[in-house]
Amino acid sequence: MRRFVADVSRNLTTQRRRNSATCVLQHSTCSLFSSSQSQSSVVIPVRFLNTTSVDPSMASDYSGTPVTLDTINPKVLNCEYAVRGEIVTLAQNLQQELKENPGSRTFDEILYCNIGNPQSLGQQPITFFREVLALCDHPAILDRAETQGLFSADSIERAFQIFDQIPGRATGAYSHSQGIKGLRDTIASGIEARDGYPADPNDIFLTDGASPAVHMMMQLLIRSEKDGILCPIPQYPLYSASITLHGGTLVPYYLDEATGWGLEISELKNQLEAAKSKGISVRALVVINPGNPTGQVLSESNQQEIVDFCKKEKLVLLADEVYQENIYVPDKQFHSFKKVSRTMGYGEKDISLVSFQSVSKGYYGECGKRGGYMEITGFSPEVREQIYKMASVNLCSNISGQILASLVMSPPKVGDESYESYFAEKDAILSSLARRAKTLEAALNSLEGVTCNRAEGAMYLFPRIELPKKAIEAAKAANTAPDAFYARRLLDATGIVVVPGSGFRQVPGTWHFRCTILPQEDRIPAIVTRLTEFHKGFMDEFRD
Amino acid sequence: MRRFVADVSRNLTTQRRRNSATCVLQHSTCSLFSSSQSQSSVVIPVRFLNTTSVDPSMASDYSGTPVTLDTINPKVLNCEYAVRGEIVTLAQNLQQELKENPGSRTFDEILYCNIGNPQSLGQQPITFFREVLALCDHPAILDRAETQGLFSADSIERAFQIFDQIPGRATGAYSHSQGIKGLRDTIASGIEARDGYPADPNDIFLTDGASPAVHMMMQLLIRSEKDGILCPIPQYPLYSASITLHGGTLVPYYLDEATGWGLEISELKNQLEAAKSKGISVRALVVINPGNPTGQVLSESNQQEIVDFCKKEKLVLLADEVYQENIYVPDKQFHSFKKVSRTMGYGEKDISLVSFQSVSKGYYGECGKRGGYMEITGFSPEVREQIYKMASVNLCSNISGQILASLVMSPPKVGDESYESYFAEKDAILSSLARRAKTLEAALNSLEGVTCNRAEGAMYLFPRIELPKKAIEAAKAANTAPDAFYARRLLDATGIVVVPGSGFRQVPGTWHFRCTILPQEDRIPAIVTRLTEFHKGFMDEFRD
Repeated sequence: MRRFVADVSRNLTTQRRRNSATCVLQHSTCSLFSSSQSQSSVVIPVRFLNTTSVDPSMASDYSGTPVTLDTINPKVLNCEYAVRGEIVTLAQNLQQELKENPGSRTFDEILYCNIGNPQSLGQQPITFFREVLALCDHPAILDRAETQGLFSADSIERAFQIFDQIPGRATGAYSHSQGIKGLRDTIASGIEARDGYPADPNDIFLTDGASPAVHMMMQLLIRSEKDGILCPIPQYPLYSASITLHGGTLVPYYLDEATGWGLEISELKNQLEAAKSKGISVRALVVINPGNPTGQVLSESNQQEIVDFCKKEKLVLLADEVYQENIYVPDKQFHSFKKVSRTMGYGEKDISLVSFQSVSKGYYGECGKRGGYMEITGFSPEVREQIYKMASVNLCSNISGQILASLVMSPPKVGDESYESYFAEKDAILSSLARRAKTLEAALNSLEGVTCNRAEGAMYLFPRIELPKKAIEAAKAANTAPDAFYARRLLDATGIVVVPGSGFRQVPGTWHFRCTILPQEDRIPAIVTRLTEFHKGFMDEFRD
Repeated sequence: MRRFVADVSRNLTTQRRRNSATCVLQHSTCSLFSSSQSQSSVVIPVRFLNTTSVDPSMASDYSGTPVTLDTINPKVLNCEYAVRGEIVTLAQNLQQELKENPGSRTFDEILYCNIGNPQSLGQQPITFFREVLALCDHPAILDRAETQGLFSADSIERAFQIFDQIPGRATGAYSHSQGIKGLRDTIASGIEARDGYPADPNDIFLTDGASPAVHMMMQLLIRSEKDGILCPIPQYPLYSASITLHGGTLVPYYLDEATGWGLEISELKNQLEAAKSKGISVRALVVINPGNPTGQVLSESNQQEIVDFCKKEKLVLLADEVYQENIYVPDKQFHSFKKVSRTMGYGEKDISLVSFQSVSKGYYGECGKRGGYMEITGFSPEVREQIYKMASVNLCSNISGQILASLVMSPPKVGDESYESYFAEKDAILSSLARRAKTLEAALNSLEGVTCNRAEGAMYLFPRIELPKKAIEAAKAANTAPDAFYARRLLDATGIVVVPGSGFRQVPGTWHFRCTILPQEDRIPAIVTRLTEFHKGFMDEFRD
């Protein structure tokens, strides 16, 4: 699929150069999507339509500038990131249309179910966390009488504690490249409390969300296209994008949809051997738990098998554990891979393990704060020195994000003034998410030709759609993937934005989409209705 | 020099593996620096000494783990970043020593003059900026009566304005990949006000400080080691590090120390031709204005020559303009390259130009907030789409940093409640920096064998030291660069941390160091005294 899209993109770039005026004009006046539209208008970079700076003759006008698609880094050209891909651009254009012509559609808003971005859909931040952040931003008010009336006592106390942890009490200074030591102490304590095993603040690298940490590990491990990284399929496209940007090879292992997206060791072994036989040196295994986009939570025994596999095959275990707080079913529990490996008796020098965590997910959902960390264990001092150097080149992650990462790993405790309200906020969010997951899951499963595994964790549903042959042919005629065709039609008819399964990769010949469970609960019934009506209409239109 | 250091590093890695126990023990008990110490102790990764997790047999213990220096990405191994290099690690160890044994030295604190990090040395943040950030972090207090007493009226008003600019008023949501559109509107207006030419919010990419923006452009432009980037020597090591990490070739052009670090077009031409003759395809020219580490401010006529050179040679002009607010001499003024090129009559499609800006520098010095942007002009829609995709893979930069970037480009205006106090804070910082620059420059020029150009702008002095032959020989015996030898001795004797010139590269056979002008003004006399005494002693010890 990736190759397909890249090839289409390249062909159309050439075509665009020849015929850009026509394409742009055609597109700016046509509906977002119609099955009769021409090939070329499908892949036009829609983001640049309808902006003042673009005119039809633009492409040729830039002939005097030095950078062209033919002269940029081909790794950039080949990289894909569907979560913010074309479907989002189409949605933004549609949003603009609704703004300019209210009432032009049967819906009046765009519902962004494409991305795990809770606060964009109305989730409120946790009060205690924001109180502490505000006080750290403006410490001049810490000693003022009015502050007592505006902020909880424990948020003031926590802000003072944090200031004591920051050299010179300077929240406006670059920190240590790994993050402020005192905050890393707090995070290490939080990990210890979670796992029941020691954590070392020197193992923690605070980062601007989890993404830069993932890039850092890919940059460390990938030397050439002969280095492979085992990634689940379906996967969160950060991994494929990062591997492509760093010039490595994604070695896929398929999760088994039939067993609730099970992770089979036999599949890992087969794919590892297949890669080896092609001369690929596999360096690491990516595991996303709870799963993204698939929402499954691994069992402890499965995790033990994975740890043993990595140990035996000398693979770095890259554990994406950013959804560790998002578990919605009573029969599943989150276990960190570090805890699992320590429970198995493996120590620091037995297994190389990186755990990624982020403030963007969990019940807090503070995506805009760009806080996160990776905990690295099982790397020699020499290699750690190299990771430290990579962190140093970017100086440090943002301090508000660092503070927030320490807060989510050390929230208010029983007895603290904020505890009750904090717990109520947290519980309300998590229990509502569990209800929303269940409602949407049931709604999807009731649709003709749709099956959807349960969302045990994370923030997504990843239903499979059996598309009628006619729909597949229509997609082909429109030069797009069948699930992208479905997603565009869904957007055009309902304003609901989902990501086509092809953006995450999937078993060839199967079609899915990823839909978040994040719209506020009072909107869920309307979403179910709109989705159900659309799906019926779509199936009626294309039924074989 | 880079090759020298890299080779030393590789040799000593081997040596370390053979003899790690001895080296570590030797180092953990010895003084920070003595001319009699053995080769091996010089390059040991000092950061890992004196930490609980390291023991002498560590290196061999990790033999069971998969990642070694021999199997990591060699680009990472070759990358260097002196600003946070060994000298800082030595300083951190010394700081720990002072904490554990107060009074063990003739000084009682470490003065970090290695890095442009104003608030770490006591500079206070601008009140208005922090008020707005705090209110944006905790909007629940915006309507409360107590808030009126704690915050200025215009900070409250500005926070309301910003909330209106943020979709869903959600400061906790991921934004558009380029940053919140409303904030980009504000920044574009700020650029227009600065330059007198239009700026388009769609040209702005908000980033976590300027560093990720620099990486993004290097990633876009560099395909292989056959792609070259023209960089000033001396340069800020982010550029060499980023070029190395992305596998390109740094094509050096030397600034002329004799003419106040002048940038000669003839030198650019010579180096470009020399690179071409080696088969290097030069893609871009980096210009740092005001200069880092050199502190010079380019004249407008010089900038015009540079623009013409880039246009003629089809080079992307990468303009590091992060010190645009830091000008200390009445006869110099900052002109953005965009303004200069527009004044010359060149429009959007005539020259490819990227301007980097950061909230870390200026009079605000908000390094920890990691805010910044790049303004890209002169790139075709197709190429811009690729840049947008790269930005999307990391989702967005942190929102507090985005807000702060909008604030520094749109500070309080005459008539606003905060204007007077804001202006007083700004003026106090900038005029003090100018005085500090002058005092330190004079002190350095009074030292035997030291010449120092004036700091017209930025935050640094970059004096040249004529080192006695005996000192150079001692450095050679200690297996280190002569200026690194000087910097270590300075640290050991005074607690002052400077970066050896070799970290920035320099004309071979010349020696420098970079020293910030950032210690608070009341500390400057003591620094001058300590530096002067040390230098005398050093010269007496090594005088030929």
